Amino acid sequence: MGQDQSSVFDLAAVAAASNGGNNDPLLPPARFIGEPQKPSKMPYNKYVAYDKQVPFDYPERTWPGKRLQRAPRWCSVDLRDGNQALVNPMDSERKLRFWNMLISMGFKEIEVGFPSASETDYDFIRLLIERELIPDDVTIVVLTQAREHLIRKTYECLRGAKRAVVHFYNSVSVLQREVVFRKDKEGIKKLATDAAELCKELEGEAGETELYYEYSPESFTGTEPDYAVEVCNAVIDVIKPTPEHKMIINLPATVEMTTPNVFADEVEYVSNHLQDRDSVVLSLHPHNDEGMAVAAAELGILAGADRIEGCLLGNGERTGNVDLVTLGLNMLTQGIDPQIDYSNVPEIRKTVEYCNQIKISERHPYAGSFVFTAFSGSHQDAIKKGLEARQMAADMAGANLENFVWLVPYLPIDPKDVGGSYEAIIRVNSQSGKGGMAYLLKTNHNLDLPKRLQVEFDKIVQKYADETKKEVKDADIWRLFKDEYLPVEETGATAAGAIVGDSHDETLEQWGRLKLLKVQVSSGEDGSDTVLKARLLDRGVNVGVDEPVERELMGVGNGPIAAFINAIAAIDINVSVMDYVEHTMTASTDAMAASYVECEIGDEADTTVIWGVGIDSSIITSSLKAIISAINRSMR
Amino acid sequence: MGQDQSSVFDLAAVAAASNGGNNDPLLPPARFIGEPQKPSKMPYNKYVAYDKQVPFDYPERTWPGKRLQRAPRWCSVDLRDGNQALVNPMDSERKLRFWNMLISMGFKEIEVGFPSASETDYDFIRLLIERELIPDDVTIVVLTQAREHLIRKTYECLRGAKRAVVHFYNSVSVLQREVVFRKDKEGIKKLATDAAELCKELEGEAGETELYYEYSPESFTGTEPDYAVEVCNAVIDVIKPTPEHKMIINLPATVEMTTPNVFADEVEYVSNHLQDRDSVVLSLHPHNDEGMAVAAAELGILAGADRIEGCLLGNGERTGNVDLVTLGLNMLTQGIDPQIDYSNVPEIRKTVEYCNQIKISERHPYAGSFVFTAFSGSHQDAIKKGLEARQMAADMAGANLENFVWLVPYLPIDPKDVGGSYEAIIRVNSQSGKGGMAYLLKTNHNLDLPKRLQVEFDKIVQKYADETKKEVKDADIWRLFKDEYLPVEETGATAAGAIVGDSHDETLEQWGRLKLLKVQVSSGEDGSDTVLKARLLDRGVNVGVDEPVERELMGVGNGPIAAFINAIAAIDINVSVMDYVEHTMTASTDAMAASYVECEIGDEADTTVIWGVGIDSSIITSSLKAIISAINRSMR
Repeated sequence: MGQDQSSVFDLAAVAAASNGGNNDPLLPPARFIGEPQKPSKMPYNKYVAYDKQVPFDYPERTWPGKRLQRAPRWCSVDLRDGNQALVNPMDSERKLRFWNMLISMGFKEIEVGFPSASETDYDFIRLLIERELIPDDVTIVVLTQAREHLIRKTYECLRGAKRAVVHFYNSVSVLQREVVFRKDKEGIKKLATDAAELCKELEGEAGETELYYEYSPESFTGTEPDYAVEVCNAVIDVIKPTPEHKMIINLPATVEMTTPNVFADEVEYVSNHLQDRDSVVLSLHPHNDEGMAVAAAELGILAGADRIEGCLLGNGERTGNVDLVTLGLNMLTQGIDPQIDYSNVPEIRKTVEYCNQIKISERHPYAGSFVFTAFSGSHQDAIKKGLEARQMAADMAGANLENFVWLVPYLPIDPKDVGGSYEAIIRVNSQSGKGGMAYLLKTNHNLDLPKRLQVEFDKIVQKYADETKKEVKDADIWRLFKDEYLPVEETGATAAGAIVGDSHDETLEQWGRLKLLKVQVSSGEDGSDTVLKARLLDRGVNVGVDEPVERELMGVGNGPIAAFINAIAAIDINVSVMDYVEHTMTASTDAMAASYVECEIGDEADTTVIWGVGIDSSIITSSLKAIISAINRSMR
Repeated sequence: MGQDQSSVFDLAAVAAASNGGNNDPLLPPARFIGEPQKPSKMPYNKYVAYDKQVPFDYPERTWPGKRLQRAPRWCSVDLRDGNQALVNPMDSERKLRFWNMLISMGFKEIEVGFPSASETDYDFIRLLIERELIPDDVTIVVLTQAREHLIRKTYECLRGAKRAVVHFYNSVSVLQREVVFRKDKEGIKKLATDAAELCKELEGEAGETELYYEYSPESFTGTEPDYAVEVCNAVIDVIKPTPEHKMIINLPATVEMTTPNVFADEVEYVSNHLQDRDSVVLSLHPHNDEGMAVAAAELGILAGADRIEGCLLGNGERTGNVDLVTLGLNMLTQGIDPQIDYSNVPEIRKTVEYCNQIKISERHPYAGSFVFTAFSGSHQDAIKKGLEARQMAADMAGANLENFVWLVPYLPIDPKDVGGSYEAIIRVNSQSGKGGMAYLLKTNHNLDLPKRLQVEFDKIVQKYADETKKEVKDADIWRLFKDEYLPVEETGATAAGAIVGDSHDETLEQWGRLKLLKVQVSSGEDGSDTVLKARLLDRGVNVGVDEPVERELMGVGNGPIAAFINAIAAIDINVSVMDYVEHTMTASTDAMAASYVECEIGDEADTTVIWGVGIDSSIITSSLKAIISAINRSMR
């Protein structure tokens, strides 16, 4: 291309003037509070806004008002585009493992390689064909540049395949026409149609193989849409697809160059201007340079695309191809069957990471390890309430919870539907409120703390979190709770009715003044008062210093709690019960009961309101233990 | 909420009928080739399409035809939303390091914590205020739920600050109104206006602090847009912002629930229906649950948003907040000054990974380690040509290359503008063609191989790559090249004029039959023939077996190459030169020259076309070495 011709580098002037930029004096400054932002020193005026590079508008667009309705046709390009972008491309073992997973997930189109460019790819495709590893309902796709010797080698590689798509491409962008191919529009179009003609010619030699074609105007995003249509239509003219034997026209966002609304406009324009549209499967191949490949694919579907090429978890050149896992599960959240089985995301992740030897981020949509994790207290509280409300609604509807409508705050998808569990949802750090702690105690320890007890215990957890500045694990919370509310031995199954002989046990001394040794309750059938006799170990006001004494106490009241409170008044402990909650911890008849008592303790001049917790197989014993827990705590 | 009222769980019927799904018999099957896809077993009919949850359409939309024009106001929420989502939230040291980086990058609004929910946050904010660490042009934002005791504590924390934004929020979504707050629309709105009123009341106690407000209708994406506007307008009514003293209305995509075109519609609707719009900064806070947060932010800006909240590299609850680095650098690619300094992405990444203790993916836009890497041969070739064409265009324009318009295939941004280098761009694996190898030889070894030599050498590299199935590093390529074309000692500076004494050196034996020991050339000034005398070491046809002989040869020709070819005909070696290219390897006068000669070697019945390469400070010696290289290779 001579000096006298126009060049893409003429855009240098556009860039230098920064017409697409924010230095336009006609634009008002961005609204602000406080001080305005300052110009950075970044060289923004060496970049040309996309609409200056590829001027295009499509006011006829209809896609913005549309919604996703059904899954597109999916094509995995993991074994080709994904593979070629790896530091260490997959060997046959890893390729086969990936292939088997794709088959088991339900992919019906799989691009398996670029056989004319790589012996490894060639050999792998021969292995699939010769060992008959391709199921009857799966179609392989093989990629080739639109060049004669490469196309010939591609056909050679396909010998004996039952069915295949020959996918040929050439770059048609303004930039590549000038700097790479140094051809004009006609010359570039001829590369495509020559390739199409050669393909048709070679069909004769293909024997029994049922052949389909795919053509990609590569670097589509850097191409004038009307010219891309012109090239595609010229290829369609040669291939002559029919509604019964379609061909694929695939639009690659080889480089993602701007916002996805522009891409969607281009897709809708192409969809509306392709000839023999009923004979064409319109496909997209989005890359993620600007972090919007998922959006480009979804808006592209609204704009008329029938088929999406991508990789599992977004592998591929540079920033990767569009992530098929995210796309598929986004479909699911809209009540759409993705037609691919993503029910075991952890397994998919494991295989992909093994085969690609690249780790995904912990925040990767649907598959990252933090995706279903809530650290924030208000989120935790809302999730807890949401799960309870859903349970209740399902119960009321007599519906199976597992399949009942999923509506839970902060969880767009049921973790169980993608191979996760609820256990990892709630995690507690110094930023969490009481919701997370309460959730963990309920889920893992069957303790459903009353609200004010949550507030009380939360201060203890918060203090610990602020001091350690680390995630507070479930084990930490449980330890803090036991230390605070429960005598050491009275946890879990071992607590049931345990009467400890050695009253000088060190941990008990640490724990507090009173210990219930035995209790006996009698009440008449006619609602008369309850008479309670209790044997207590009293370690004295100064635990560990005073000599422990066993005491026999008796009290009368309208129930065992009232009777016990009356009984201990004899040793100058004044308690009144403010609130009392009790629940069984499991569903069986020999279940443990948990009791929570809010007590006001002390004389008139100096009272403390404090909670106590007791766990026992007997609801009487558990409630008395709860009162003792509150008394002991008040005296620490 | 009683059983007789409507409930979000009534959507169970919608979900079960899968009206948003693909089981609608009226929809034609997706176009396909080969076999159709099959239904998966995923429970898609427990999910409700977004438009069934929040029915909304906005045909008045104008955003799809708009383009990005300028940077929005940025607010980093790394120290709050990002921090609260960490397994181990930042301690003061890490927080301060992050803070300092944000300041140095140019952020003017930074959300610094949720002081009423966390002592760590409270203490950090006090530290910023008391140690006067907040620059005059920076505004801190503090978050609080719209609850009285939390708001009071928030104000307490701000004592002595010069300027601050109090950011209060309450959740307004359909789901949270029902399952978390159990209040109707009026009740939820009152939570917001009560909070606003309390804020106004507390202003009196705030002393010298210049106060601004931000209100977030949290879970905006799960809320009817008209109701969200109603609540925001009620808050605006209380706060009474003015064009000179604005307030922020922030729309959180607390959970990303659908495609970003719907979000953009909602943003444009809110922007058009907020009262006192000129007194409001409309802000967005997108999360990335469906992998489209970047798109949601950018389309939201087109739809009228003035301000974006997010985190560096996309940290934050679950899948994270929108990534400010990607957004900023996307702006740059459109010729827009991001007004934030992203010129050292590796340093930003290092600090973020240190402070968050989370690694980002190698494919993370702009910041991942593979982002500027091309393994594919055609990409490598295009990048090489693109860089050359850009260089040439800059030279022709007399422009400084560094600031010259950036138009290079497959590289949306100049790696140097974000702290990268060109060295890491091209990497070679078994999937790469010759472009990468050629680029590396040129960039790292100053060898600009002629096209047909590239093709020849590429086969050697490909074979090696296919055998090792690993990335072929630059050192591997250089070793392969030397082994194939250059005598071992004749590389780099040591090659210059080296005459090796020990002709039985083992590596030399491996390398081939002939070695040039000395050359003498004479030619007259009148264009007469060149006379060449050469002393060669001839190790014989069977190198290592035959006894080496030193030979004195003489030849005459119209130049040294022709004379040399005539000279060696005396020892029955028939060579004709097909192509010859030579270039200097550096710009200095004592530079080395590289010569590439394509030779046809052998007698009529059995000829080989093969390349040879020679490097020497003398262009005569380098060209003769190149011929010897070709001869020796032909005899291996």
